[in-house]
Amino acid sequence: MTLPLNPAFAATEPPPVMEARRWIAGKTFSADKPLINVSQAAPVESPPLGLRQAIADAALNDPQAHLYGPVLGLPALRAEIASQWSAAYGGAVRPDQVAITQGCNQAFTSVVATLAGPGDEVILPTPYYFNHKMWMDMAGISLVALDTGATLIPDVAACEALISDKTRAIVLVSPNNPGGVEYPAETLAAFRDLARARGLALIVDETYRDFDSRHSQATGGRPHDLFTDPAWDEVLIQLYSFSKAYRLTGHRVGAIVASQERLAEVEKFLDTVAICPSQLGQMGALWGMQNLGAWVGGERQEILSRRDAMISGFSALQGWKLLGCGAYFAYVEHPFDLASDAVCKQLVEDCAVLALPGTMFQPEGSPAGKRQIRIAFANIDVSGIAELFRRLASFRP
Amino acid sequence: MTLPLNPAFAATEPPPVMEARRWIAGKTFSADKPLINVSQAAPVESPPLGLRQAIADAALNDPQAHLYGPVLGLPALRAEIASQWSAAYGGAVRPDQVAITQGCNQAFTSVVATLAGPGDEVILPTPYYFNHKMWMDMAGISLVALDTGATLIPDVAACEALISDKTRAIVLVSPNNPGGVEYPAETLAAFRDLARARGLALIVDETYRDFDSRHSQATGGRPHDLFTDPAWDEVLIQLYSFSKAYRLTGHRVGAIVASQERLAEVEKFLDTVAICPSQLGQMGALWGMQNLGAWVGGERQEILSRRDAMISGFSALQGWKLLGCGAYFAYVEHPFDLASDAVCKQLVEDCAVLALPGTMFQPEGSPAGKRQIRIAFANIDVSGIAELFRRLASFRP
Repeated sequence: MTLPLNPAFAATEPPPVMEARRWIAGKTFSADKPLINVSQAAPVESPPLGLRQAIADAALNDPQAHLYGPVLGLPALRAEIASQWSAAYGGAVRPDQVAITQGCNQAFTSVVATLAGPGDEVILPTPYYFNHKMWMDMAGISLVALDTGATLIPDVAACEALISDKTRAIVLVSPNNPGGVEYPAETLAAFRDLARARGLALIVDETYRDFDSRHSQATGGRPHDLFTDPAWDEVLIQLYSFSKAYRLTGHRVGAIVASQERLAEVEKFLDTVAICPSQLGQMGALWGMQNLGAWVGGERQEILSRRDAMISGFSALQGWKLLGCGAYFAYVEHPFDLASDAVCKQLVEDCAVLALPGTMFQPEGSPAGKRQIRIAFANIDVSGIAELFRRLASFRP
Repeated sequence: MTLPLNPAFAATEPPPVMEARRWIAGKTFSADKPLINVSQAAPVESPPLGLRQAIADAALNDPQAHLYGPVLGLPALRAEIASQWSAAYGGAVRPDQVAITQGCNQAFTSVVATLAGPGDEVILPTPYYFNHKMWMDMAGISLVALDTGATLIPDVAACEALISDKTRAIVLVSPNNPGGVEYPAETLAAFRDLARARGLALIVDETYRDFDSRHSQATGGRPHDLFTDPAWDEVLIQLYSFSKAYRLTGHRVGAIVASQERLAEVEKFLDTVAICPSQLGQMGALWGMQNLGAWVGGERQEILSRRDAMISGFSALQGWKLLGCGAYFAYVEHPFDLASDAVCKQLVEDCAVLALPGTMFQPEGSPAGKRQIRIAFANIDVSGIAELFRRLASFRP
């Protein structure tokens, strides 16, 4: 390329999912051993008919569907989130503390852009979600890796030791992608206290909140108490996605819950990069929130039953170690004396299984990633999971 | 706010359109003198029924509508642009030289992000499109203003004098927002030659290409010859929007036409900020390109007749000077000894007319902006334009 290239882009690796896609490109798989694709965390079925009808009806009959909407999102959707969040988390969230974005990746990038610039530092537990790292690389922000060891749960004292005068934020993802672990409420509270004491933002990405096993507990069942703090918005910035629970990936709708002052800064980014989120996507998300509560509950039960099947499958599988299991993910340690990307390539060849190596979720050269693999199990049912384990049991790379 | 704030955001002004909205907030306008809103450049009517039906049908029946699509956009839409562009511009554009974005603002930000980082310089003719400036402020890029004087057409020699070793790109918008002028083909060719000679990217934003008056000329009618250069992609990056011609603002669909190598860098940004554009929006855009050619031609004729009405209206209006008129905009110099933001506020009070002052499109303190006003006329028909001029004729701030 003869034209200028921002050096930060030269230093940013392409999305790793594309690399994995190349492993299966042009390959054919036999009918008796079709590909089991556990590489991507996305629904593959359509939303329920009612939701599709609501979107189609808006496209046909609602002139607003085709016009610009407010930069921070549809007021009715912001209000619905505020109301449902206040009830679910036992706190008080106002509509002006909610913004809608073109998906949760944009929620993350817009929030981090307001917090940190070139030379600043942001702390991320490892393994991390790779788009989080990509944004920091592009923006010239230093990612400070917080090793979570074998538990995959970050330790607040270890985090404190990483804080410098350049630190601007701590990012937590719970339930975790790629780790699958659900962070205990006490862990989140301790990180909140640390962030507040040190004047940092605590970003909590709850993209997978609807599949948290604690939702189904009899008493309360909220995953944390962060919103019960009346001054939560002095420190907490929460991110959410409509892609998973409502199967709206192709519409790109996410959300930010934060202080009104923070959202005024986010608004500058969103106005410049987005102007507004898709109106139809937002209308679909609103219809879903208002009508699909029970349906999402059923989806959660199905995912949790698959999670159980993954847990018992790995407990019976010689040599493999399940480090975390929840949300859409099992995060495992393989027993072979091989780097995980070599293991994953071999899994395609020998087992017709596509999974992502832990190296994609760790800083380059990290030893942990070389033994780890992420298995996104949300798209295979219990019989598919049984077949996955039959193939893994005979795998000898 | 107690949390950290990226200093680049503190230095970024909020979107000026919001400031203008505050001038009419809470105001009521009488039935005999309703508000004439010429502040925003966006269609206010729905797309044609066929396009709405195509979107509704996809929402109901096409499972792809709700799933992630490729980061760089739907292959069929990329191919359609390549094919129509090759014909319209008399050059050769391949599908892999086209990317789809969540609107043209995102096309701009993603392209500039790959070219320039903190401390780099990008040259923009003034008056400029304010979101372009906002991205540079947020990204720490220095905007180097190229004064276009009374013609509003940038001068290539004046531009050359502004190039430094930090310059990465030149941005041109034609037909221009806010200036309304259509850049001559020779001007664009001269800028292309300059950019190539100096190793810079030439970004040409053609959001309003469908309303270019040269489209309707009998012979050829393409607005420039940039794509006839077989090596166009060594220097040119073109941006486009589906929002205006197809009335798809609320769906956020734009495009980038550039080298495959450049789009591989853009892909990193889009994967991280967007994942993919709205699938329904892209399906609507594709249907529009395949079915609405004649309809868009009619829309162009209507806009061009409004443009004629603006030109003759200003030629008859004492003291006002029309600097540029085209696309959706008349860009004018007012005759009063008052700053243009004061004039625009007074226009709301006295005339129930909302227009944007030139100061919003110029660097702070620029003398030119103080005398200039942008009038976005696309949403008022010829009788509305007549009423606008009746009100302006009696205006004495």
